[in-house]
Amino acid sequence: MTTGIPSASDIREAHGRIRPFINHTPVLTSSAINRMFNAQLFFKCENFQKVGAFKARGATNAVRSLDETNLRKGVATHSSGNHAQALSWAAALAGAKAYIVMPSNSSPVKVEAVKGYGGMITFCEPTLSARETTLQKVMNETGAVEIHPYNDPRIIAGQATSALELIEEIPDLDMIIAPVGGGGLLSGTALSAHYFSRAAHVIAAEPEQADDAFRSFTSGNFVPSLNPQTIADGLRTSLGSLTYPIIQKHVSGIVTVSEESIVRAMKFIWERMKVIVETSSSVPFAAIMENKISIGGKRVGIIISGGNVDLDDLPW
Amino acid sequence: MTTGIPSASDIREAHGRIRPFINHTPVLTSSAINRMFNAQLFFKCENFQKVGAFKARGATNAVRSLDETNLRKGVATHSSGNHAQALSWAAALAGAKAYIVMPSNSSPVKVEAVKGYGGMITFCEPTLSARETTLQKVMNETGAVEIHPYNDPRIIAGQATSALELIEEIPDLDMIIAPVGGGGLLSGTALSAHYFSRAAHVIAAEPEQADDAFRSFTSGNFVPSLNPQTIADGLRTSLGSLTYPIIQKHVSGIVTVSEESIVRAMKFIWERMKVIVETSSSVPFAAIMENKISIGGKRVGIIISGGNVDLDDLPW
Repeated sequence: MTTGIPSASDIREAHGRIRPFINHTPVLTSSAINRMFNAQLFFKCENFQKVGAFKARGATNAVRSLDETNLRKGVATHSSGNHAQALSWAAALAGAKAYIVMPSNSSPVKVEAVKGYGGMITFCEPTLSARETTLQKVMNETGAVEIHPYNDPRIIAGQATSALELIEEIPDLDMIIAPVGGGGLLSGTALSAHYFSRAAHVIAAEPEQADDAFRSFTSGNFVPSLNPQTIADGLRTSLGSLTYPIIQKHVSGIVTVSEESIVRAMKFIWERMKVIVETSSSVPFAAIMENKISIGGKRVGIIISGGNVDLDDLPW
Repeated sequence: MTTGIPSASDIREAHGRIRPFINHTPVLTSSAINRMFNAQLFFKCENFQKVGAFKARGATNAVRSLDETNLRKGVATHSSGNHAQALSWAAALAGAKAYIVMPSNSSPVKVEAVKGYGGMITFCEPTLSARETTLQKVMNETGAVEIHPYNDPRIIAGQATSALELIEEIPDLDMIIAPVGGGGLLSGTALSAHYFSRAAHVIAAEPEQADDAFRSFTSGNFVPSLNPQTIADGLRTSLGSLTYPIIQKHVSGIVTVSEESIVRAMKFIWERMKVIVETSSSVPFAAIMENKISIGGKRVGIIISGGNVDLDDLPW
């Protein structure tokens, strides 16, 4: 891992390292949906993962990669989303402490979830600079090791194991579609497709309202994500210095979708597949429903990234 | 099947007959839920079945049991629920017509679903006598064969295949819990446990607001279901002359649950298991949450009967 880009064996080792702790998630299919789109769709269901999202993979790999000394000091991050829960859960399972910096306007549901997994929360103002300053302060006080939500080779290698499992189960995929926010899942998926699949190319789907990855990808110059308003709250972050070049090299295309079609795709998946997926998870299927990706006659893997939804606040 | 009670080989034959057309549904588990209840729970997920409910099994078995002459005449039933959809779907797949009598106050969602599967609908007044009279009229005009939703050995044998699959996959169950409405699923489950499981006894769960099966079971005298108001709309019907004696003989106990706990159980399953289950499906788990069934240390199968929910009208 000298370049910071996980190798094929880094990903295989990550899989071996995390396998005792995570779920081997199922791949679901629907013959009705296949008929409707004249394709074969394979949904890799990370909504059935521990803590309800693929983030459990990267967090577990990062925590389990620490030596005894660092593990004793604990891990730290700033996050208001699934990474905060995943890191708290993975740390607790390894007998380590997790220090989580959360913005003061985080939803009570997410705060309770982090607490439920044993994470120790420090609240801060809801700005990026306050989050970073507060995290630095917490790390100085505790000696905890930062685990970034995506710009970390251990995280990328961990997230890559979802596509690895998908490819092992469905070896002859033509395409894999993943959502993109910070790019941890997407870069890992692209590396796994590159290393382990014969033919699958990787397409990313992103909300139009948070199209920084699309613009970075098409322009070749990094474009940051500035206060995006998409409903897909897991996809609001900017690409990282590590994830961006991997994506630039190994992803075949990025397409964007409307807010309306994200909600329509989410409801469609709930109704037809009977599984709970969150807004961010619905973005790849929204791209299919919007005809942004040509899938006719193809075998298509779709990474369903998570299923953490506030059932009292649905978007329809 | 001379007694009307399906034999072990009737159920095996039913399984062989329907297997090409139905889904072999997955059995899901949750280590968090297992820890919470100090038991091993195995959820047999008929919400992932064709048409979103176990009813596809019985309907397929009944339709595929008809001879060529009867099949050409078509099948008929009165139903406002999942049986109407399942029979329409199973008939269409066999190239046969399905005549469905539905009460005029049926929900538009269900009417559209039946139409979508190709069922030909005749509306009638929303009373049992109007349903029966209208069905008789339709059958006289068309020559179609009635397929009752539960009081039919072919239906019971078909519904029994869900528990058969569960027992084959998890052979050492101590208990299977199923919901009870008309008793097609419950009597089939009880027969499969009796024939194919070494030790599993079968417990039924029923809404307090529709406790006719509980009262029939405990009193030993058939008690009809009179206009029950439960939210579990699949469980409002009375037991049948065929299902009642099977249940009386092969079910170990029936427990009842409150309306509130049905909704709480449904929401809990959505949140924790990330799968969409309907109200009727949530009744067995509600019984566990209400501590009505002692499951500590046991291996418990739970039949999740279906997942057809109006996402615009959730009960919380």
